[in-house]
Amino acid sequence: MCEFLHVVRASLGRLRRHPESKAWIDKDVLLDPTCIIGQGACLYGDVKVQERVRIESNAVIHGPVSIGAGSFVGSNVILGFPPKSELAKLMNRGGDLHRAPDRGELTIGRECIIRSGTCVYSGVSIGDRVSFGHNVLVRENVHIGKHTLIGTNVVIDGSSEIGERVSIQTGAYICTNCKIEDSVFLGPHVVLTNDKYVTQKKTELVGPTIRRGASVGANALLMPSIEVGEGSVVGAQSLVTGNVPPYTIYAGIPAKKLKRIPPGWRTSLLAQ
Amino acid sequence: MCEFLHVVRASLGRLRRHPESKAWIDKDVLLDPTCIIGQGACLYGDVKVQERVRIESNAVIHGPVSIGAGSFVGSNVILGFPPKSELAKLMNRGGDLHRAPDRGELTIGRECIIRSGTCVYSGVSIGDRVSFGHNVLVRENVHIGKHTLIGTNVVIDGSSEIGERVSIQTGAYICTNCKIEDSVFLGPHVVLTNDKYVTQKKTELVGPTIRRGASVGANALLMPSIEVGEGSVVGAQSLVTGNVPPYTIYAGIPAKKLKRIPPGWRTSLLAQ
Amino acid sequence: MCEFLHVVRASLGRLRRHPESKAWIDKDVLLDPTCIIGQGACLYGDVKVQERVRIESNAVIHGPVSIGAGSFVGSNVILGFPPKSELAKLMNRGGDLHRAPDRGELTIGRECIIRSGTCVYSGVSIGDRVSFGHNVLVRENVHIGKHTLIGTNVVIDGSSEIGERVSIQTGAYICTNCKIEDSVFLGPHVVLTNDKYVTQKKTELVGPTIRRGASVGANALLMPSIEVGEGSVVGAQSLVTGNVPPYTIYAGIPAKKLKRIPPGWRTSLLAQ
Repeated sequence: MCEFLHVVRASLGRLRRHPESKAWIDKDVLLDPTCIIGQGACLYGDVKVQERVRIESNAVIHGPVSIGAGSFVGSNVILGFPPKSELAKLMNRGGDLHRAPDRGELTIGRECIIRSGTCVYSGVSIGDRVSFGHNVLVRENVHIGKHTLIGTNVVIDGSSEIGERVSIQTGAYICTNCKIEDSVFLGPHVVLTNDKYVTQKKTELVGPTIRRGASVGANALLMPSIEVGEGSVVGAQSLVTGNVPPYTIYAGIPAKKLKRIPPGWRTSLLAQ
Repeated sequence: MCEFLHVVRASLGRLRRHPESKAWIDKDVLLDPTCIIGQGACLYGDVKVQERVRIESNAVIHGPVSIGAGSFVGSNVILGFPPKSELAKLMNRGGDLHRAPDRGELTIGRECIIRSGTCVYSGVSIGDRVSFGHNVLVRENVHIGKHTLIGTNVVIDGSSEIGERVSIQTGAYICTNCKIEDSVFLGPHVVLTNDKYVTQKKTELVGPTIRRGASVGANALLMPSIEVGEGSVVGAQSLVTGNVPPYTIYAGIPAKKLKRIPPGWRTSLLAQ
Repeated sequence: MCEFLHVVRASLGRLRRHPESKAWIDKDVLLDPTCIIGQGACLYGDVKVQERVRIESNAVIHGPVSIGAGSFVGSNVILGFPPKSELAKLMNRGGDLHRAPDRGELTIGRECIIRSGTCVYSGVSIGDRVSFGHNVLVRENVHIGKHTLIGTNVVIDGSSEIGERVSIQTGAYICTNCKIEDSVFLGPHVVLTNDKYVTQKKTELVGPTIRRGASVGANALLMPSIEVGEGSVVGAQSLVTGNVPPYTIYAGIPAKKLKRIPPGWRTSLLAQ
C-alpha cells in the first residue's frame, strides 16, 4: 500500500533537487513534477499537490488534502490531522490514521505560506495567499479567506469563519463558533471566549462576532456571544462584556465607550 | 549499542504496517507486536511500549519511559527529555542523552492521547485516559491524574500536582509548585505565578492551590501561594491577590467577591 | 551538491555515536569531529559547527550558520530560517531555500542550549551561554546578550536588542523594535506592543525600552514606545500607558505609581 522512496521515481515526474531525499510518499499521491519534497516528509493517502509547491523536511500530510500552486509547507508541519472524535474511533479499532472514508478534505489555496510546526486539521478550507506563522493550530470546520495572516502560536479551535485580509497576531486564541469578518485586526494574545459559566452550567457555546474592519488591542478578552461593530476599536488589555457599536472606541475592565472613531480613521479603513 | 532498522525485525514481533519504516529503535526497547511505529521515530534506551500503542513519525523517546496500552503518541512528540540540571551535566561531560542511570522514569497510562509537538520530561507520571493538545510542555516532577485534559500550548513548569478530570485550556501557564485538585477548570491563557517580588528579592517559590471543582476564567492571573476554594469561580481577566473562599464568585482587578455560588451550580459540580 | 549520508564519512572526522545515523549534510558543512549529529538532522549550505556541539534528531539548519563549542541544538529546531521578504522571493523564483548569497549569518555562541521546536531566523546573533526553552521563535535582526534566558513559547518578532543576563519567562511576546537592557526580568505572558492605533492609522512601529534591572510582572502589557526606568517594577496584569521612572513600582490598569523601590531591593539588583 505504501512505498518508501529511496530515489524519487520517474513516475512522480522530474522532482527537482534532493535526488536521494528520503520522503515517504503513498502511491495515491498526485505530485506535480515541479514540486520539491524535503528529507523525511510523509505524504499519506489522497494528497494532491499542484505545481511549484515546496514541502520541507519532516512535514506530515494525511489525505485527503489538496495544496494549490506555489504554496510553501514548512518543516514539521502537519496537514489533515483528524478531529478528536475521529482520532478516538481510530484508536479504538486500530485503524489507519490515513484512511478514513468520510474524512473532510483540507484544501489549501495558491501561494500560501505555512511555516514550521503548524498543524491544520482535516475539514478546513484556506483561500489563496494566506500566510501562517510558526506553530499555528487550526482545528476542523474552519474557513479562512484569502490574503489573511495568522500569526505564530495562534490557536483557532474549530467551527469558525474567518474573512479575507484579516490579521490575527501572535498568540491570539480563537474559541469555537466565532465569526470574524473581512479586514479585522486582532492584536497579540487576544482571547475570544464562548463559555460564560466556565463549565459549571451547561450552555450552548457561542463565540464573539467581530464585524468588518474592527480592531482588538493586545491581550484584550471578549466574552461569549458579544459583537464588536464594524470599524470599532477595543483597547489593549480590555475586558469586553457586552456589544460594541460600530465605529466606536471601547476600553477598560469592563470596557466602556471612550469616543466615536475619528473620520480620518474611517477613511483609511474603507480604503483597505 | 544502537541499531538502525531498515526493516523492522522479527525479534520485535509482528509490527504492523509501514514495513520499511525507518525507525531508530534501541535494542533495549520492549515493543508489543501490535504497536505501530511511524517513519523516522527514535526510541532510545529503556522504553517499554504496551499493546496497540501508535507512535507517529519523528517522535523521539528517551528512556526510561513506559507507555500504557492503546495510547497515541503524535508526530514530533518528545518523551523523557532531561531536566535542566541533568542536561547541563550531560553537555559538560559529553555523555549520551539517552543513558543516565539515575534518571526518573516517565510513565504514561492507558489510552492517553499525546498530540504533535508535545514534550514531556522525565520524572513525570500521567494517569489513564489523559489527553494532551498540541505543543504542550510538561517539565519534571509532575503528576497528572486520570481523565485530565491539557490544552494546546499549555506549559506546566515542573514540581506540580494535577488532579483527575481537570481541564486546563489552551495556552494556560502553570508555574512550579502548584496544587490543582480534581475537577478544576482553568480557562484559556490563565497564568499561575510563584514569584511575588519578580526576582528582585530571594523568596521561596510557592504557586497557587486550586481546590476541588473550582473554575478560573480566561486570562485570569493568580498571585503566588494564594488559594482558590472548593467550587469557587474566578472571572475572566481577573487579578487574584488573596485567598478566594469556597463556593464564591470573585472578579476584577484586584479580584473582589461578587456573590456566593447559586445552589444549582453546586449540584452540577457535585455530580461530576 | 548535496549528499545523503548513509554512514557518516571519514572526511567529516570521527563523528561519535549513531554510526548509521541518517543525517543530510551538505558538502560545504564544516563539522568538528567531536560533534554528535542525530537521526534525520539536515544541515544545508554554509554551516560551521565547533567542537562538542550536539545536534539532535530532525533539526534543520539553513546556512550561513555558525554554532559555538559545547552548544546543544534540540530535536526539530530550525536555524537560519529566512525572513518573510526573502521567503517570498525564493517562492517566486523557485530558488533553493538554502542558497541565498546575501543572507545574514546566524551566529550562536558557546555553550548555548536551544531546546526542541525552537526556530531562529537568519541575521540573528546570540551570545555565549544563552538558554532557550522549547518552541521559541526569534525573527531576523535580533541580538541576544550572553547568559540570557528565553522561556518556552516566547516570540521575539525581529529587529530588537536584548541585553545580557536577561530573563524572559514563558509565553512572553516581544514586538519589533524593542530595547531590553541587561538584567531585565519579564514575567510569563508579558506583552510588548508597538502599534498604538492597531493598524487603523499608519504610524512608525516603535516598541518599549526597558532599562537595566527592571522587572515586569506576569501578563502585564506595555504600550508602544514607553520606557520602564532602571530598576523599576511593573505589577502583574498591569497596563503601562506611559513612562515609568527609575526605581519605582507601578501597577494597575492603567498602571500608576505605588511607591519607590525599597533600598534593600536596589542592593540585590546592583549585586547581579
